Amino acid sequence: MSENPYNIGLDRNPANYQPLTPLGFLERAASVFPDHTAIVHGGLRRSYAQFYSRARQLASALAGQGLGRGDTVSVMLANTPAMLECHYGVPMCGAVLHSINTRLDAAIIAFQLDHAMAKLVIVDREFAPLMAEALALAKVTPPVVLYDDPEYTGPGTLDEAEDYERFLASGDPYFAWLMPEDEWDAISINYTSGTTGDPKGVVSHHRGAYLLAQGNALTTSMAKHSVYLWTLPMFHCNGWCFPWTLSAIIGTHVCLRQVRSEPIWRALAEEDVTHLCGAPIVMSLIESAPQAEKRALDRRVQFFTAAAPPPERLLASMKAAGFDVTHLYGLTETYGPAVVNEWHGDWSALPDTEQARLKARQGVRYLPLEELAVLDPDTMQPVARDGETIGEVMFRGNVVMKGYFRNTEATRKAFADGWFHSGDLGVVHPDGYIQLKDRSKDIIISGGENISSIEVEEALYRHPAVAVASVVAMPHEKWGETPCAFVELNSGQEADEMALRNWCRAQLAAYKVPNKIVFEVIPRTSTGKIQKFVLRQRASKLVLK
Amino acid sequence: MSENPYNIGLDRNPANYQPLTPLGFLERAASVFPDHTAIVHGGLRRSYAQFYSRARQLASALAGQGLGRGDTVSVMLANTPAMLECHYGVPMCGAVLHSINTRLDAAIIAFQLDHAMAKLVIVDREFAPLMAEALALAKVTPPVVLYDDPEYTGPGTLDEAEDYERFLASGDPYFAWLMPEDEWDAISINYTSGTTGDPKGVVSHHRGAYLLAQGNALTTSMAKHSVYLWTLPMFHCNGWCFPWTLSAIIGTHVCLRQVRSEPIWRALAEEDVTHLCGAPIVMSLIESAPQAEKRALDRRVQFFTAAAPPPERLLASMKAAGFDVTHLYGLTETYGPAVVNEWHGDWSALPDTEQARLKARQGVRYLPLEELAVLDPDTMQPVARDGETIGEVMFRGNVVMKGYFRNTEATRKAFADGWFHSGDLGVVHPDGYIQLKDRSKDIIISGGENISSIEVEEALYRHPAVAVASVVAMPHEKWGETPCAFVELNSGQEADEMALRNWCRAQLAAYKVPNKIVFEVIPRTSTGKIQKFVLRQRASKLVLK
Repeated sequence: MSENPYNIGLDRNPANYQPLTPLGFLERAASVFPDHTAIVHGGLRRSYAQFYSRARQLASALAGQGLGRGDTVSVMLANTPAMLECHYGVPMCGAVLHSINTRLDAAIIAFQLDHAMAKLVIVDREFAPLMAEALALAKVTPPVVLYDDPEYTGPGTLDEAEDYERFLASGDPYFAWLMPEDEWDAISINYTSGTTGDPKGVVSHHRGAYLLAQGNALTTSMAKHSVYLWTLPMFHCNGWCFPWTLSAIIGTHVCLRQVRSEPIWRALAEEDVTHLCGAPIVMSLIESAPQAEKRALDRRVQFFTAAAPPPERLLASMKAAGFDVTHLYGLTETYGPAVVNEWHGDWSALPDTEQARLKARQGVRYLPLEELAVLDPDTMQPVARDGETIGEVMFRGNVVMKGYFRNTEATRKAFADGWFHSGDLGVVHPDGYIQLKDRSKDIIISGGENISSIEVEEALYRHPAVAVASVVAMPHEKWGETPCAFVELNSGQEADEMALRNWCRAQLAAYKVPNKIVFEVIPRTSTGKIQKFVLRQRASKLVLK
Repeated sequence: MSENPYNIGLDRNPANYQPLTPLGFLERAASVFPDHTAIVHGGLRRSYAQFYSRARQLASALAGQGLGRGDTVSVMLANTPAMLECHYGVPMCGAVLHSINTRLDAAIIAFQLDHAMAKLVIVDREFAPLMAEALALAKVTPPVVLYDDPEYTGPGTLDEAEDYERFLASGDPYFAWLMPEDEWDAISINYTSGTTGDPKGVVSHHRGAYLLAQGNALTTSMAKHSVYLWTLPMFHCNGWCFPWTLSAIIGTHVCLRQVRSEPIWRALAEEDVTHLCGAPIVMSLIESAPQAEKRALDRRVQFFTAAAPPPERLLASMKAAGFDVTHLYGLTETYGPAVVNEWHGDWSALPDTEQARLKARQGVRYLPLEELAVLDPDTMQPVARDGETIGEVMFRGNVVMKGYFRNTEATRKAFADGWFHSGDLGVVHPDGYIQLKDRSKDIIISGGENISSIEVEEALYRHPAVAVASVVAMPHEKWGETPCAFVELNSGQEADEMALRNWCRAQLAAYKVPNKIVFEVIPRTSTGKIQKFVLRQRASKLVLK
């Protein structure tokens, strides 16, 4: 075979090839719109010139401490300007950003600091005591920089920590920041909470962050100068890459220390917010705010939700309040959202129940994800597109992580057969939209039949009295396993076990109806996920009467 | 130095790395919105399912003819559905798309066919006689496929050509199309018209096409389901990558065989067009349409213009007619637009003259272009940001061509010192926006002083009687060179040489005032560019009286 003539004398060179990185978005925004408001935080307003200048100062200060390529900077910050600065300043010195979930306990934080080999820590004053506790447990002894957010007036400090503003001031605002040597270089590490075993450190690279950041804007039709409200924690998967997206479209970040209804409604009305993200709980918060806090909005607001399908009642009331809700799905391993419930215009004419059913589906691949499939993990063949056959949701493409840090075995397993195995179980509908049915370990096997705990939960959620429902397996002498439901009721509403079991019986095959329904407060992780492993332990101790 | 821990055991694999290519945009659009209208052409409407299916059939048919990686498919087509199919179908079999300017002469077409080593030709019936002439001159003897557009009823045929629809029908609509082996693989070749010497074949790759296609949508805030009218020839630089952009946002292409005012206004009104592109001449056509053709539009339409700064009068009347005009700049070597006049909201409050002055500037780097600079080509140092010091406009980044096909010397020169040398001369304003002043060869050197022919042209354009103005150097015994202007007047308006010279004298330094003004029809290239080399020849024969 003769050589392809289009490959002769047409090699990469600095003029036609540069590593993809989202860092350049900020440089561009600051060059072109230096005076545009980049960040709003309480009374503070920072322009893109200031944002870029401070990010470079941070990079310079870190470099001054000897930090560089491949070094980890661990941060524990609320959704503040400092957190945005870290998303640029840390990689601008070649280092890797490690954002820590602020709701974790000291032991897990210590594990992360050691495993990530933290070289420096930046911590918000509110979390300083917790960080001090973690550092006392950790083997690493990184220097600590303390961020004192003017919007925080509570207690907390940390001895021998350098003040963030003083640290920043030691840096050069004209610092010649470092491009990645390769677009495959790491930009961040995020530990998955995981319900069992040690947390795994998900490594993301510049290429993927660039592509997902742009994919967010394209998928969500984010126009130039959009205004984004930070109801999603930035420590969660780098805020789904939105810290980088906003610079690409020269938008405005509205920071928020705490997710409370009053500041959300105030920001929506006064800062002309156009986009925000969050779990359905954030929608509930917005929707159930006291009437005095709610404000009339002069535009439709785009709300992107993930973690759980948005319930029908919430969808209807959000729509009435001026929000268009889009359902996304992804994992830390996919940089955040990699699946989107692409809405078809004609679906909006359907009855609300039908719309909610369609919107409950996770959807189709994000533009920068090359392939999304539901495969039989044994044969690696796609399941039938019948909305019923369950397989494992798998991903393939440029917005899939680099791998797990210092964990070759977990990386190898995750990428077996050339696909990223999500561990989530789902089905494919005839139109190609996927829908999650369960985590592999959450499936209930009763008399040899698979029961999707999500399907049972959905039946329970349709009952007007049910606020939260979670279903796990409980041991059963005859069937092996049988469903057990944990339920929280809406305040002022009533339903007993018999009523709910009858309700389920009307909707589900008999073997799927929970044998036991427990009314109690459901335990959650620091990110708000229901701790099914705790429920499973509880269920294992229940005795069927 | 110890190894970067983030590079250990975290290599590329099929699960987390795929070549970037715009071809996947169409696959996604067809999977997710199979019934959405992808293409409108006269009475014809094709859905994304049909578009994708036909593109795969074309790829399959080409593969059936033995075409594959690195083979060139040369096409000579108007802005028709077939041309869109070629933008996907040709690279889907691994081949390289060579779009030929339909206004070239047979000798140049023959040169291109030979130089590109055309393996197959697809030609519109209208251009078949011209292609037959070219093939008679060419050394290559590719098979020919004839596209008979139902919207074309004029003469033209080509013996021994296969019918396009029959050729397509021989292909498999489920053909497993080829991903590029590497994102650096060529996707297209486009010959620059060039005013001297042989045309150069600009090779583009999948990576750049993917990035510019997305950059178009981001830069122009193109929301999902935008409707794009094809007033820009697709043979021109692959329609600036918009054939690929539209699939990314699941938009609709409205084809147009000929750029005439009546079908443009009809499409604007009846197809709900949101975006279109073209040189200022297209704006003139829209604006000067008979009143009976003009329609009221229920939305602002985005018009992207390049090739020449949009004149003030045209901007004002386009605004009144419902169009937002954005000024872009780029070259075939940069996949189309790589520079954008990013508009600042507060500029819209300025007087029209000031707005036109700001909009005449080419602007700043496109999001996917990493670096744009105006450098002294001798020292490679940036010029002062004073709006006056002239340097050469240079580019660096992922949307710069792979190089010139089979022309190592031209490629080497174009990429000297790690920058792509555009050959365009420009200045940088204090706010960082660049403005073109001339092509290197168009600068006039009079008594050792550089005169920008564009500056003199702008002065002439401000005169209400001037429709077109072009200024070149003419020899001068004392000063070496001196400006000579060629002018076309607006119909019904008058101005003589003395009046225009006085007009210029009021605005320009004396040595910049044209010594000679010639009133005549100005010669243009097939793409509408003024042929300055012809004017230069004419000017060289003029004798100053």
